[in-house]
Amino acid sequence: PTSKLPHLGTTIFTKMSKLAHEHKAINLSQGFPDFSPDPILLEEVTRAIHSAKNQYAPLQGIFSLRQTLCYKLNKLYGSNYQPETDITLTAGATQAIFTAISAFVKAEDEVIVFKPAYDCYEPAIELYGGKPVLIQMQAPNYQIDWEEVAAKISSKTKMIIINSPHNPSGKILQQKDLEKLQQLVKGTNIIILSDEVYEHLVYDNQKHFSVARFPQLAERSFITYSFGKTFHVTGWKLGYCVAPKELMTEFNKVHQYNVFCVNHPMQVAINAYLQNEQHYLGLAEFYQQKRDLFLSLIKDSRLTFTPSQGTYFQTASYKNITQEKDTDFALRLIKEKGLATIPVSVFNKNQQDDSMLRFCFAKKEETLKAAAEIINKL
Amino acid sequence: PTSKLPHLGTTIFTKMSKLAHEHKAINLSQGFPDFSPDPILLEEVTRAIHSAKNQYAPLQGIFSLRQTLCYKLNKLYGSNYQPETDITLTAGATQAIFTAISAFVKAEDEVIVFKPAYDCYEPAIELYGGKPVLIQMQAPNYQIDWEEVAAKISSKTKMIIINSPHNPSGKILQQKDLEKLQQLVKGTNIIILSDEVYEHLVYDNQKHFSVARFPQLAERSFITYSFGKTFHVTGWKLGYCVAPKELMTEFNKVHQYNVFCVNHPMQVAINAYLQNEQHYLGLAEFYQQKRDLFLSLIKDSRLTFTPSQGTYFQTASYKNITQEKDTDFALRLIKEKGLATIPVSVFNKNQQDDSMLRFCFAKKEETLKAAAEIINKL
Ligand SMILES: CSCCC(=O)C(=O)O
Ligand SMILES: CSCCC(=O)C(=O)O
Repeated sequence: PTSKLPHLGTTIFTKMSKLAHEHKAINLSQGFPDFSPDPILLEEVTRAIHSAKNQYAPLQGIFSLRQTLCYKLNKLYGSNYQPETDITLTAGATQAIFTAISAFVKAEDEVIVFKPAYDCYEPAIELYGGKPVLIQMQAPNYQIDWEEVAAKISSKTKMIIINSPHNPSGKILQQKDLEKLQQLVKGTNIIILSDEVYEHLVYDNQKHFSVARFPQLAERSFITYSFGKTFHVTGWKLGYCVAPKELMTEFNKVHQYNVFCVNHPMQVAINAYLQNEQHYLGLAEFYQQKRDLFLSLIKDSRLTFTPSQGTYFQTASYKNITQEKDTDFALRLIKEKGLATIPVSVFNKNQQDDSMLRFCFAKKEETLKAAAEIINKL
Repeated sequence: PTSKLPHLGTTIFTKMSKLAHEHKAINLSQGFPDFSPDPILLEEVTRAIHSAKNQYAPLQGIFSLRQTLCYKLNKLYGSNYQPETDITLTAGATQAIFTAISAFVKAEDEVIVFKPAYDCYEPAIELYGGKPVLIQMQAPNYQIDWEEVAAKISSKTKMIIINSPHNPSGKILQQKDLEKLQQLVKGTNIIILSDEVYEHLVYDNQKHFSVARFPQLAERSFITYSFGKTFHVTGWKLGYCVAPKELMTEFNKVHQYNVFCVNHPMQVAINAYLQNEQHYLGLAEFYQQKRDLFLSLIKDSRLTFTPSQGTYFQTASYKNITQEKDTDFALRLIKEKGLATIPVSVFNKNQQDDSMLRFCFAKKEETLKAAAEIINKL
C-alpha cells in the first residue's frame, strides 16, 4: 500500500537523541530536562495510583483539574474559560495540536505556519490534504513580517499557527504582534492555533502574551499547553488544550476516537500539585538561572548569540568556527566532540541554513559545564 | 468554521457513565473494572517514577518492553515480530487504531467494518474521507457471512477491520474464519486491522485465534492490544500495535506527530510486571469466574442469553420483559432501577434493534450481586 506521507522520515529529535546515546555524547539536542521532577509531585502520583484512580477518566479530563486550570488561565491572562466546556486534557501538547488540526483541516485548506517551526505542524496538515503556507522569519531577530502574512491570507486560509515563546529561537511575540494578528483575522473564519507550551519560561521580566489575553483572538483560538515542559516530566505525556466551546466540541469528537481520554492517576497528581502556584510561577527564575549559567560559561567561545527570551532553548551562530552546513557540523559535533545539538535548518523553510545550532539548557549544572568545555574548544 | 464530523455526538460510554453517576446507578455500561490493579504493579510505578524515567521515551516505546512483548506474542502465537521495527507502544489501543487508519485511509477508500462494532472505527475512517462499508452480523450467533464479505470487497477496499474476542457480543473468531479471510485478501493490497484487546479473556478452554498465528494474514495486518484491559488499569491509557516493518514505518510517521511517544515510567513498570507470565495467563480463569458468577446470579431472570466466549461483556435479550426500544429501556433502567448498561443497537448497522443489552462483568462480586438483584426483579 502507498504511503500518505512519502517524504517523511523520523523526527530530528529521535535521530539526535539516538546518535547522542550511541556516541555517549552530552545531549543538548532534544528538549527535555536531565534532572528529576519535584519529589512532592512524585508522591502525589503514588498517592493517586493507590486511590482507585486507575480507570478511565472522563474524556475531557477530571473536572477538578479542568477547574484548576481554567482558574489559573483566567487569573493569569484575564480570560474566561469554563471548565465544563472549554478545556480538554491531552496526551501531551503534540496530541492537542494534532487533534485541533484533525478537527478542522480538510483537503485544499491552507494553514499558515511560521518558520523556523517545531516539526509537528506540517505533517498533520498534509495528512488531511491541507497545504502548509510557510512564512520564514529571519535570524537573528525572527520578527514576523505582518505585511507578508496579510499577503498570504486567502479565502482558503483555514488556520494560522503561532508559537510563543518560540521554539527554536526563544523569541516572544509582543502585544503589537498579537494586535496585528487580530486585525488580520477580523471578519474571517480563520482559526488560530497558539502553541504556548513554554508559557512559564519567559526571562528578563518579559511578559508572556498569551492569545488568551486578547478576547477577539481567543474567541477563534485553540491554545495548547504542556505539563511535561512545566513540571520536568516530558515522559508523562500530559498537556491540555483550551478553546471556546464551539471549537472544543469539534476537537472532542476527534479526541474521543483518537485517545478517548488521558492518564487518570497523573491527572489527579498534577491537580494536587498545581494547588501551590509557586510550583509554576517559580519556573521562570529557575530556568533563567540555567540560561544565564550556560551563556556565562560560553561567553568566550567562538559562538555568537543573543540571549534567549523564553523556552529552554538557546540558538547560536557558529559562523566564526566553520563554513560547514549545520547538519554536517551537528553530526561532526556528536561524533567527534561528544556534543549533541539541533541544526536549526531542519526547522526552516527549504532547510535554509544560517549556520545556527540550537542548545537545550534544561540541564543540570554539571551537564552545562561539560557541554561548555567542549564548546569553548571549538 | 464547519464541522468535519457533523453527525457525531459524544460516545455512548461517556453518556452512560455520566448518567450512571448522576443517578447513582450500578455501572455495568462502560467497560472497565471496578476493582484495583495488583499492588505489585503499583509498586513498579512508584519505583519507575523514582528512577529517572520521567522524560520522553523513544517514539516506538522503550526497547526492553518491546522485546518482552514481541517475545510474548511470538511464543503465544508462533509469530516472528522484531522489537526493532515491528511494534510501537501507544496511548491505549484506541490511539493505535486511530493511527493505523490515519496512516493509510484516504478519501474514497473503502474500509469493511463488521457490525455490531466498537464505536471508534467509523469516525476515524470518515475523518479521512474514507467510506465505512458495513456488514451486519446477526444476533445471537454473530457469525461473519464470508460470502457477503467477498461480495463487498472492491478495488477501493483499503482495509478490513476485525475484532476478536468481539465487543459487544463476546464471540471469538474461529480458525476457519481467519482462513476464509486469508483466502479473500490473497493477492490484494488490503490491510487488516485486527483489534485483539481482549486476547487474554477467552473462556471455556477456547483458543484465541490471533491474526499473528496466520503468517499470510500477519504480513498485511496491524494488531492492536491494550494493557488497560489486561491489567485492570484502563485509566493508564497504554497499549501497543504490531505489524510488519513496512506498515509500522507508515504508522510511526503519524504516531510521532500525534503523540510522539507514550508514558515512560508506566512502560517501565509494565515491563517489570510482564516478566511474570502468570500476570496475564491467569486472566482467563479470573474473568471466567466473574462471568460464571454473573450468569448464575441472573439465570432465573427473564433475560435470555448464551454465555459470552470472551471479553468482559455479556449480551442478553430482554424480549421477555418489554417491547421497548433498547435505548429507551436502557435509559429507564438507569433512571428508575439504578442499573447502567449499553443498548446494543448503538453498535449495529442502522441502529438495528434486537432488544439486547450489554453488561460488563469486570466488577467486584458485590457489584455483580447488587446488579443481579435488580435484574431478577425485571
Ligand atoms: C517531542 S521531542 C521534541 C522536544 C522538543 O520540544 C524539542 O526538542 O523541540
Ligand atoms: C473507551 S470507553 C469504552 C470502553 C470499552 O471498551 C467498552 O465499554 O466497550
